[in-house]
Amino acid sequence: MTDRLLPGERIDQLNSGGIEIIQNQSVFAFSLDAVLLAAFAQVPPTGRIVDLGAGNGAVGLFVARRTQARIDLVEIQPLLADMARRSAALNGLADQITVHTMPMQQAPGVIAKDSVDAVLTNPPYFKNVPTSKRNPNPHLAMARHEVAVSLAEVAAVSAALLKFGGKLFMVHRPERLDEILPALTAHGLAPKRVRFIFPKPNKEANMVLIEAIRGGKPNGVRIVPSLIVHDTAGNYTPEVANALRND
Amino acid sequence: MTDRLLPGERIDQLNSGGIEIIQNQSVFAFSLDAVLLAAFAQVPPTGRIVDLGAGNGAVGLFVARRTQARIDLVEIQPLLADMARRSAALNGLADQITVHTMPMQQAPGVIAKDSVDAVLTNPPYFKNVPTSKRNPNPHLAMARHEVAVSLAEVAAVSAALLKFGGKLFMVHRPERLDEILPALTAHGLAPKRVRFIFPKPNKEANMVLIEAIRGGKPNGVRIVPSLIVHDTAGNYTPEVANALRND
Repeated sequence: MTDRLLPGERIDQLNSGGIEIIQNQSVFAFSLDAVLLAAFAQVPPTGRIVDLGAGNGAVGLFVARRTQARIDLVEIQPLLADMARRSAALNGLADQITVHTMPMQQAPGVIAKDSVDAVLTNPPYFKNVPTSKRNPNPHLAMARHEVAVSLAEVAAVSAALLKFGGKLFMVHRPERLDEILPALTAHGLAPKRVRFIFPKPNKEANMVLIEAIRGGKPNGVRIVPSLIVHDTAGNYTPEVANALRND
Repeated sequence: MTDRLLPGERIDQLNSGGIEIIQNQSVFAFSLDAVLLAAFAQVPPTGRIVDLGAGNGAVGLFVARRTQARIDLVEIQPLLADMARRSAALNGLADQITVHTMPMQQAPGVIAKDSVDAVLTNPPYFKNVPTSKRNPNPHLAMARHEVAVSLAEVAAVSAALLKFGGKLFMVHRPERLDEILPALTAHGLAPKRVRFIFPKPNKEANMVLIEAIRGGKPNGVRIVPSLIVHDTAGNYTPEVANALRND
């Protein structure tokens, strides 16, 4: 397989049905966030799934073995979209997975509105800031900061794509919860299930997983049991170790 | 002390500096929610504290020994306000604690606007529903359902009373988080610290404690480690047992 890799790329493998993923540490590599989002998402057995801001395709690839649904990955950065496309081919998933190299704001229309069963998204976590304060690596800056898309736009695009009753699965940072929940409800996405991720016991949460339903009723938020990533000795807890298992 | 009690009343005592509280199970008795709210609240050493919807005064009484601040309790139900007033006297706190028998919507003005350091509130948890579906006990119905005050009004009154930089401490139900956070931010109250309470391991949260700061910056939400009330054997966990200790 190494003849399919560009300089700086490597192939990583996780506990998702033997999926292999092309990574490039200097451009973009998926992290635990993507693994936990894929595990959190309840994907439909058939229909259509869209990953908004797909990066190198990790989340869509991780869920592919659990569904017959068509999976559309939307990624603005050509280098990352290209890695995702080659990873899909590498795993024999070129028929199931389509990679669209475009800003996610253009997705409604390219992908039919009101047609999607599940949207998965690991959007940029941080507010846009002056160039001088961003990561000097432009690929990482765009993936991490809201340079190309805002939280409100992620919610608007998700709502436009989803069927009535379709589900959004998002991973984000807890410190923005005061902005995330209003952004979702403003676009008719009712938060339904929330899971907080704590890096270790007695630390504050550093990730939040959110499921929202388009057209769902308000006041039905369920806070499910938390996930703690490391035990007090610094080892992965069993659930995380299982999700990261390389087999 | 029993000569100060009305029929159906009893005196309960908790681990809050020997505070005794007059309760009446058939009218209103404080619950774990009040105990945990009092423990969560960071009360100022001096200044002014207001409890909105004080019931029989439990939260204000529990924090009284930790502060020299003046404490104003606001309660619409005369029977409950009277219990609170007698409990304050019973504990020698009549100089520190003032009980106002009035709807909380009337509080701004009676208590000076922009004057309060900390607002504590354990508001009605449930949406108003037709009389036929409410608790047949009108005292409990008013304490539990938004008959007399809405969540938006609780936020508006809290914001009106608090100083710039003053803090709101609220206990509520997680299923309404999608309404609570927007209600707070709409009134200039920035959520800052959130703690979820789980009844036991592997169950969903059934309470949420929220600290918000008037005029605070957005996107600074901290999800602090959770509290689990009962262990798998059904016993109180140490933190809860300590809060409920009768000494």
